[in-house]
Amino acid sequence: MATVDLAVAGPPDVLRPVGPDARPILEPSAQAAFVAKVRAALPDLRLLDDPTDRETYRRDETEYLETGLPLAVALPRSTAETAALVRVCAADGVPIVPRGAGTGLSGGAAGIEGALTIAFTAMDAIEEIDRENLVAIVEPGIINARFKAAVADVGLFYPPDPASYEICSIGGNLGTNAGGLCCVKYGQTRDSVLGLEVVFADGSVVRMGGKMVKDVAGYALTQLMVGSQGTLGLVTKAWLRLRPAPPPRLTLVAFFATLDAAGVAVAGMTAAGLDPVTLELLDGPSIEAVDDFMSLGLDRTAAAMLLVESDRPATEAAAELDAAAAVCRDAGATDVVRAADAQEADWLRQGRRLALRALERLGTVRMEDVGVPRSRVPELLRAITAIADREGIRCATLGHVGDGNLHPNFIFDRDDPTADEKTERARDAMYRAAIELGGTMTAEHGVGASRRPWLELQRGRDGVRVMRSIKAALDPQGLLNPGRVL
Amino acid sequence: MATVDLAVAGPPDVLRPVGPDARPILEPSAQAAFVAKVRAALPDLRLLDDPTDRETYRRDETEYLETGLPLAVALPRSTAETAALVRVCAADGVPIVPRGAGTGLSGGAAGIEGALTIAFTAMDAIEEIDRENLVAIVEPGIINARFKAAVADVGLFYPPDPASYEICSIGGNLGTNAGGLCCVKYGQTRDSVLGLEVVFADGSVVRMGGKMVKDVAGYALTQLMVGSQGTLGLVTKAWLRLRPAPPPRLTLVAFFATLDAAGVAVAGMTAAGLDPVTLELLDGPSIEAVDDFMSLGLDRTAAAMLLVESDRPATEAAAELDAAAAVCRDAGATDVVRAADAQEADWLRQGRRLALRALERLGTVRMEDVGVPRSRVPELLRAITAIADREGIRCATLGHVGDGNLHPNFIFDRDDPTADEKTERARDAMYRAAIELGGTMTAEHGVGASRRPWLELQRGRDGVRVMRSIKAALDPQGLLNPGRVL
Repeated sequence: MATVDLAVAGPPDVLRPVGPDARPILEPSAQAAFVAKVRAALPDLRLLDDPTDRETYRRDETEYLETGLPLAVALPRSTAETAALVRVCAADGVPIVPRGAGTGLSGGAAGIEGALTIAFTAMDAIEEIDRENLVAIVEPGIINARFKAAVADVGLFYPPDPASYEICSIGGNLGTNAGGLCCVKYGQTRDSVLGLEVVFADGSVVRMGGKMVKDVAGYALTQLMVGSQGTLGLVTKAWLRLRPAPPPRLTLVAFFATLDAAGVAVAGMTAAGLDPVTLELLDGPSIEAVDDFMSLGLDRTAAAMLLVESDRPATEAAAELDAAAAVCRDAGATDVVRAADAQEADWLRQGRRLALRALERLGTVRMEDVGVPRSRVPELLRAITAIADREGIRCATLGHVGDGNLHPNFIFDRDDPTADEKTERARDAMYRAAIELGGTMTAEHGVGASRRPWLELQRGRDGVRVMRSIKAALDPQGLLNPGRVL
Repeated sequence: MATVDLAVAGPPDVLRPVGPDARPILEPSAQAAFVAKVRAALPDLRLLDDPTDRETYRRDETEYLETGLPLAVALPRSTAETAALVRVCAADGVPIVPRGAGTGLSGGAAGIEGALTIAFTAMDAIEEIDRENLVAIVEPGIINARFKAAVADVGLFYPPDPASYEICSIGGNLGTNAGGLCCVKYGQTRDSVLGLEVVFADGSVVRMGGKMVKDVAGYALTQLMVGSQGTLGLVTKAWLRLRPAPPPRLTLVAFFATLDAAGVAVAGMTAAGLDPVTLELLDGPSIEAVDDFMSLGLDRTAAAMLLVESDRPATEAAAELDAAAAVCRDAGATDVVRAADAQEADWLRQGRRLALRALERLGTVRMEDVGVPRSRVPELLRAITAIADREGIRCATLGHVGDGNLHPNFIFDRDDPTADEKTERARDAMYRAAIELGGTMTAEHGVGASRRPWLELQRGRDGVRVMRSIKAALDPQGLLNPGRVL
């Protein structure tokens, strides 16, 4: 197996931002004039310009990030209001930060000094659930869990389920192409999007796609917009693909004495042709934290735990978990436990979902999001451990091991003065390790503001140049979420 | 149900092409000088400039299309050779037509007068089949069927299966985001692509994506490239997602006295939560033609036939087909027949696949490719029939009814002087009908050259403007497949 080079290289040169970073921030008097102009143009718009309100929109859920205080915060109620607002900003050259529920982990929705934050929380309608065509039409502010519940009420299923699904919005999910626990089987957010309505930087409104599942008329703008974190346009409506609700899941957990043994089990499941709906890993420190938090009776001596679920129909689910259990035992699992009932399965799943909260009881958590080809997971795990050890960082790793996506969590005491410095060195080494293993510095959280200096390292100079030329073509003034992604 | 407006409006104003359409074709002497320059720059390149050879590359499989004679035809053997060739073209402003196996149905790979055709037939290697990561790396010239067979040999499955899969290339599939019979369950080509290597118009080579299944670092360039028909860049390598081979399919055919009854059955399968791997429709004229061609013993009196297949594991497949049969009977099927064995199932599937060949025995076939939301299929079928009747066109319709994609085939006597005129009127009416029903003028064949005048009708003025700005950003000289798509 290849050895990953752990040399400290330091972050690459910061990329020159596309567009307005050179733009001077409006003077306070000009800011007040801009707010007055927005009020005059859109008298019914909810616009927050009180400093306390604005302060609330400074951060998303990303730690270690320099943020800015928004000039003001607008909460539009319609596409027309959004488009009109964008036109006012374009006329005055005021940058825009689009924002969903603010749960992002890349700083993509954090405030920018002198920019208008447009929060889509007031546009949260489910316009239609079309059972005949298995499509729903929603506004971006709808909370993922509320939407999932609404479609479940009519016997349907919307797969994407980020761990934050109870508090994150579909608009944010579209921005980052959010993943989650079941994307190992059902794909990321992009795989569930059939169409979008987008407000571009000049205020034009383009509807792309719709209820048909196949369409090759022109370029894949819908796919391009998903994951662009509001840097190319603002999503004001989405056509989302639904599925018939699968049967209730059957759940299994397996414990291992080493991380490598868990890695062997994951590879074995692929080789056995299994297609679990959940295939999650918790390492030893994560197991302990979750068990401390929720008292699930997990094996606290284990170095790794796998959570495996099947949603195959009828007897096939039991057969799939039997096969998964056999693979785990062959790989040397110290214990394999089937959830006794739906209640117990739900606890286990919640344990995984609440792992971040469990870890946050231990200190400040800085969560990362690296990904590699599935077969390289053991190497990535070893690299993460080595990097954390070298920096003296307490680290708990968990994640979507079935698709090669791990979340290392760096845990610091709240007043640790070395946290920033250690984090930067560890992130740099970890991103380089993931990329060297044929992987990515971010599998589902996004580049946002926090990973931008490393983009060229992964995508190459020419790759970033291609992205920048698209950005410049669609947003020539560089007004949309400047300094994010690119 | 909404009535579709069948008024004849005529094709919309032809869109102004992006880039080089105003560019004068090189004079014959300049053409010869260009060929000499290519030979000097790339002495090992296979370059055809004999008029007979060039004539072979004038057409793809699209009827009723004005084509051009390529200036020359290059058959590169590597990415480096392709990139060098593109740089020579860029220096002299010579347009490029990328071409796979030439089986396209939109004129996307047809020759352009004065342009260099780059055919990727000599780059047809399977570089790797990675069983651990369920990924293959291929060159674009590989024939779909050869690739499917190679992965099947190691127990894996590459889903995309256009009806032409025995003769079409993966590169062409990527260009059009090709569909096929099993995309109702497994998606189109884009859904199976994890990464690409692309030569851009300036000769730069960008690798995007790879073996990891999740990656949100930067824009979705891979998704954007797929379906862009060589207008944004030339694909020289692809990372394709594989799946464990599903079990052998079970097959059912059902016959109906009316097209509407078949439509009811399709809707019923969605409502019943079925997820068949094949859900195909043949109308009466198609049934007759296939039965004449292959003597399958189909019910020639039926107005519609559905072909339904399940690849669920073990007993679940039989259960799924039992449910499908019940839905068909409830919808008024006159006959429901299960294939007795794999051989009989294969005949039926081949019958569907060879329908175009069967229809071609009756005359010149002009195949269309409209799509609508599944629930609107009965309305689209009625519109197609009304349009064909009005124009006095013999029409046989078949297609991927499970995802709302129909292929109406206009059949003309070989010497019918009214064919072009009737086709143009019928296409216009049909595209308008599909778009009015919330659908598309092309679900899987592509805009290419043949549907370009209607793009704005479907995607809107601003939508096309966005696409054009991306095209202009990535190919400022307009050298890549000019006059196609946009």
